[in-house]
Amino acid sequence: MSELRWNPLLGEWTITATHRQERTFLPPADYCPLCPTQPGAFETEIPAAAFDIVVFENRFPSLQAAPPAPTVTGSRLCPVRPAQGVCEVVVYTDRHATTLAEESVERIRRLILVWRDRFAELSAREDVAYVYIFENKGEAIGVTLHHPHGQIYAYPFVPPRVARKLAQAEAHWQRTGRDLLGDLLAEELRDGRRIVCENEAFVAFIPFFARYPYETLIVPRRGVAAIVDFDAVERWRLAEMLKTLLVGYDRLFGFSLPYIMALHQRPTDGGEYPYARFHIELLPPHRTATKLKYLAGSESGAGAFINDTVPEETAPRLRAACPSAL
Amino acid sequence: MSELRWNPLLGEWTITATHRQERTFLPPADYCPLCPTQPGAFETEIPAAAFDIVVFENRFPSLQAAPPAPTVTGSRLCPVRPAQGVCEVVVYTDRHATTLAEESVERIRRLILVWRDRFAELSAREDVAYVYIFENKGEAIGVTLHHPHGQIYAYPFVPPRVARKLAQAEAHWQRTGRDLLGDLLAEELRDGRRIVCENEAFVAFIPFFARYPYETLIVPRRGVAAIVDFDAVERWRLAEMLKTLLVGYDRLFGFSLPYIMALHQRPTDGGEYPYARFHIELLPPHRTATKLKYLAGSESGAGAFINDTVPEETAPRLRAACPSAL
Repeated sequence: MSELRWNPLLGEWTITATHRQERTFLPPADYCPLCPTQPGAFETEIPAAAFDIVVFENRFPSLQAAPPAPTVTGSRLCPVRPAQGVCEVVVYTDRHATTLAEESVERIRRLILVWRDRFAELSAREDVAYVYIFENKGEAIGVTLHHPHGQIYAYPFVPPRVARKLAQAEAHWQRTGRDLLGDLLAEELRDGRRIVCENEAFVAFIPFFARYPYETLIVPRRGVAAIVDFDAVERWRLAEMLKTLLVGYDRLFGFSLPYIMALHQRPTDGGEYPYARFHIELLPPHRTATKLKYLAGSESGAGAFINDTVPEETAPRLRAACPSAL
Repeated sequence: MSELRWNPLLGEWTITATHRQERTFLPPADYCPLCPTQPGAFETEIPAAAFDIVVFENRFPSLQAAPPAPTVTGSRLCPVRPAQGVCEVVVYTDRHATTLAEESVERIRRLILVWRDRFAELSAREDVAYVYIFENKGEAIGVTLHHPHGQIYAYPFVPPRVARKLAQAEAHWQRTGRDLLGDLLAEELRDGRRIVCENEAFVAFIPFFARYPYETLIVPRRGVAAIVDFDAVERWRLAEMLKTLLVGYDRLFGFSLPYIMALHQRPTDGGEYPYARFHIELLPPHRTATKLKYLAGSESGAGAFINDTVPEETAPRLRAACPSAL
């Protein structure tokens, strides 16, 4: 059973996907479904003895190109739609015991090319309103497979948190004629205290209003709306920045830091989004090496985030941990 | 350092509260700050050898009646305000090793009277726009103290998730002249499959669009906007319903189930909210006895919730676990 059910209290779709309850959960390393298939051994998701970067459709998808008919009848108040869309898995490497942070800039650059190609293909689909590229890393985030991988969800709607960000950017655009994220970037560069690292094409900072202690935004200097619009030099610079930042996280904490990595881009629903600017959010749940930030009553119930740190203190720590050369 | 920093990307305040990073974290049971102070022993937060229900100001508050001046200068894009407000702790009983589910209906009724009194007092304050009564229970939710207690945050703004719910209710009111939650309740009662328990004054159900497998809403049959507006019989019925449901949760899972309990009421900012209806959200993070629902990439980054269950299956299980008599 898989369908979209409208939540009129919040004005958003909930995706139900009951087959996911039985998905593979932290299998032993020699039964990893994301490893290459070895001759004579069990067949993984990838029928090849070696590979570079692989993309395939999630075997336990929340959204499907040919979804089943909904099992319930909706109402005017709570309509129901098929769970149309695509869920893909992006396996970063055929080596099991590594992380994106440990991989070469060259591999990260190839991953960015894969993201570009998948964005181009999925965004061309009629049924896709938003292509969301992300990575859940670490058991603290709830990952069920350790092999380094990310995911792509091609939603049939613009998801609610993305829609809120776009509405804010649109209002700013209409008020000022300028791009909100560009204005924020200019302010952060002028102040300087919260900058973590920068290169000719990208700047990473812990924003003034960070919700998580080590939440970092990677923002392009150029007002680019989607990953398909970067040139070859920008892709290199983005790969270098991701490597720098992820190594910085691991060095600062002394272990491979869990995080959510979320790529934000323009919707692909056919609308015009002159105010959308590409950015990457990195959301690590750790507030110290041994303590997590939980989304408890204030965050999950009321939506009000409390940050036990200030970015003027966390950004210098993270900056100092980032390698100055790769 | 404690202040409100505006997040222009999402259009909301982040509360920074750096002194909270050092708050008491899972102390040993004989150093519980919420226990009564025993003669000759260390002084807890409560200078009494016994008590019934106690409310006091949080020693590590996110919001304060006399907040410090902000430590940073804001900008037009990212303004800063003092972290004005109140954070209170509500200790449910002087017994350490118990839970609200294990307490008597009579104690829960007295707790509801305490909630009513605190709502009345805090809502009268000029600096308070929203009184948010909640409980974080269990280490899976990130609680730092096990002694049974809840919290009250009196925010100087209507928090963003509450504002979204109110905007949806207002739009429905303007379109139909009716109360959104009342209409939803009528639909759920007509369908019946998702009802968990009901009495003459309240109905509990896992909503059609539930985001969490065992998310339950408690909705009054009467269109009451705040806890101060219930009569004595309704307070008894609410106490009975909370007891029934919390016992049901514990019986279904076979252990004391962690949850967030969030009371939703009308704002106290002086506005008119004819479309606001009191309700309680119970959000347990467990999807099975051994697996948690994480707010990972789709939920935290995009805001799109995936539920691995359907309420037509979870509600009958929870209903069967609820005691038929108290």
